[in-house]
Amino acid sequence: MPSGELEFLKWLEASAVRTSGIHRSIGDDAAILAGGPDDWVVATDTLAEGTHFLVGEEPERIGRKALAVNLSDLAAMGASPRAALLALTLPHGFSPELPRRIVQGIRALGAQFHCPLVGGDTTTHRGGIVATVTVLGCVEPGRGVLRSGARAGDCIFVTGALGGSLQGRHLDFVPRLAEAALISSWGPSAMMDVSDGLLLDLARLAEASGVGFELDLERVPVHPDAAHSQTTAAGLPERPWHELPLPRLAALRDGEDFELLFAMNREAATGLLRHWSLPTPLTGIGEFQAHGNVVRWKGTRWPALPLGYVHE
Amino acid sequence: MPSGELEFLKWLEASAVRTSGIHRSIGDDAAILAGGPDDWVVATDTLAEGTHFLVGEEPERIGRKALAVNLSDLAAMGASPRAALLALTLPHGFSPELPRRIVQGIRALGAQFHCPLVGGDTTTHRGGIVATVTVLGCVEPGRGVLRSGARAGDCIFVTGALGGSLQGRHLDFVPRLAEAALISSWGPSAMMDVSDGLLLDLARLAEASGVGFELDLERVPVHPDAAHSQTTAAGLPERPWHELPLPRLAALRDGEDFELLFAMNREAATGLLRHWSLPTPLTGIGEFQAHGNVVRWKGTRWPALPLGYVHE
Repeated sequence: MPSGELEFLKWLEASAVRTSGIHRSIGDDAAILAGGPDDWVVATDTLAEGTHFLVGEEPERIGRKALAVNLSDLAAMGASPRAALLALTLPHGFSPELPRRIVQGIRALGAQFHCPLVGGDTTTHRGGIVATVTVLGCVEPGRGVLRSGARAGDCIFVTGALGGSLQGRHLDFVPRLAEAALISSWGPSAMMDVSDGLLLDLARLAEASGVGFELDLERVPVHPDAAHSQTTAAGLPERPWHELPLPRLAALRDGEDFELLFAMNREAATGLLRHWSLPTPLTGIGEFQAHGNVVRWKGTRWPALPLGYVHE
Repeated sequence: MPSGELEFLKWLEASAVRTSGIHRSIGDDAAILAGGPDDWVVATDTLAEGTHFLVGEEPERIGRKALAVNLSDLAAMGASPRAALLALTLPHGFSPELPRRIVQGIRALGAQFHCPLVGGDTTTHRGGIVATVTVLGCVEPGRGVLRSGARAGDCIFVTGALGGSLQGRHLDFVPRLAEAALISSWGPSAMMDVSDGLLLDLARLAEASGVGFELDLERVPVHPDAAHSQTTAAGLPERPWHELPLPRLAALRDGEDFELLFAMNREAATGLLRHWSLPTPLTGIGEFQAHGNVVRWKGTRWPALPLGYVHE
């Protein structure tokens, strides 16, 4: 236990909120959650200083994003959050405020989505902040939505709008849990969240499903933030990539959008669109096909490239 | 996604072993585990380079320990492991061998204890290796063993022998899952693992339970490694601390032992001792009492001090 941890733990325990179904949490070796008939869905994601957020970023935003990226993973599986754990690695001699503010960011978002923080670990090292959140969620038995179920003929949908997330949205995005719940009720055949760029993530979903796709570049929803993206077409083939307005190119490859990308057969898709009552846009952007990944631009087809966001 | 991660992920997915009850694991946004009537027990623990292991340590041993400390937490709750997740933060430009060898260390220990690696995350940063493992385990509903159930009159037990763990045992210890299963069947009133030193952890268990304790220093089992511990009595009151042989003092305060410390009423304890069939020693080292933490040494009682291991 690092010095400074004990004080933090006492604060954590004293400020924890009791939740039904959580039998024991902060202050023991592990947390205990009531079982039940549902399947459990578990995901873990790390944010590291200098990689996923800048040195000096507001600790509440770091905590918020650390939970949000994990909730986005649960949404992508069609699961409802149940609990979160935080493993926090801090610089030696950290200020007592730092872990508290990170936790406050986690708790504020967790409260919105019924996902209490039930346990964790704190340690120190010679380096920056590394925050790993693990989330546990539930889904009806056999109803977890995988990446691998898309079929030729299914429609491709995406929630929200894409591109320019690094302008700030990557820290403050709202995980698409409400959208996922509605989508799930219409039986998507495959789903994932867009974290590394639409073209790259769509190629992954298609590969996992053993199909190809045709993506209509004109229909991809472009976020207003994409106008401020640093993305360029440098190094890409002339057509169609250099013909695209840069914001549209940003929407295809920037990443950290945390929107839902999913496949659904045409009949279910018609029903979903008719019943879509949420403020988040839902857009059909193409179709899956038996073979080959292609993009459509101004009536012409081109080979798709798996463009995306790769950290250092 | 950091460059180098994709290759690692492909290897991870290709080399994963299928396990019943795990519906989906590596290669999707999250893992899915079959539900059931049992309670779920979840713990997370981080190892950071320079704090929990030295720079240049064998990657397999880092992975092994990262899982082992978490399995020790499950053991302390009386839970059986079901699955593990790994969130790995690596230095920029890491060698492709590094994450594979860490995973091999995790998988080798996981295979021994039926705890497959079902998911995770890899990222890079400007800093050393930070490995966070999260484990999920199961326990019969309501049978999770907390720290808070010890009562006055209960016996204090510890498995194995203590002290000198930093000589190497802290990396290679065997998590006490078999021992925990046998102990649990006799209804311990409280349990935890000894990670920060016996005196400190016993004080925590007593505090969580609202009781005191009397610890018989002569009965505390001293590990042979304790003879090589760097522990001294510097700064401690003359009696009884300076009278103790240094290996015994090391057994009381060194930490990273990962043995089980538990409370059990006298009748159950008699049964447990009679049926103790495991090679690991089991030793009664004192009793819980209504008030006050004391140690007994050569027939005299002294105030207990919460001595333990505190990282920088």
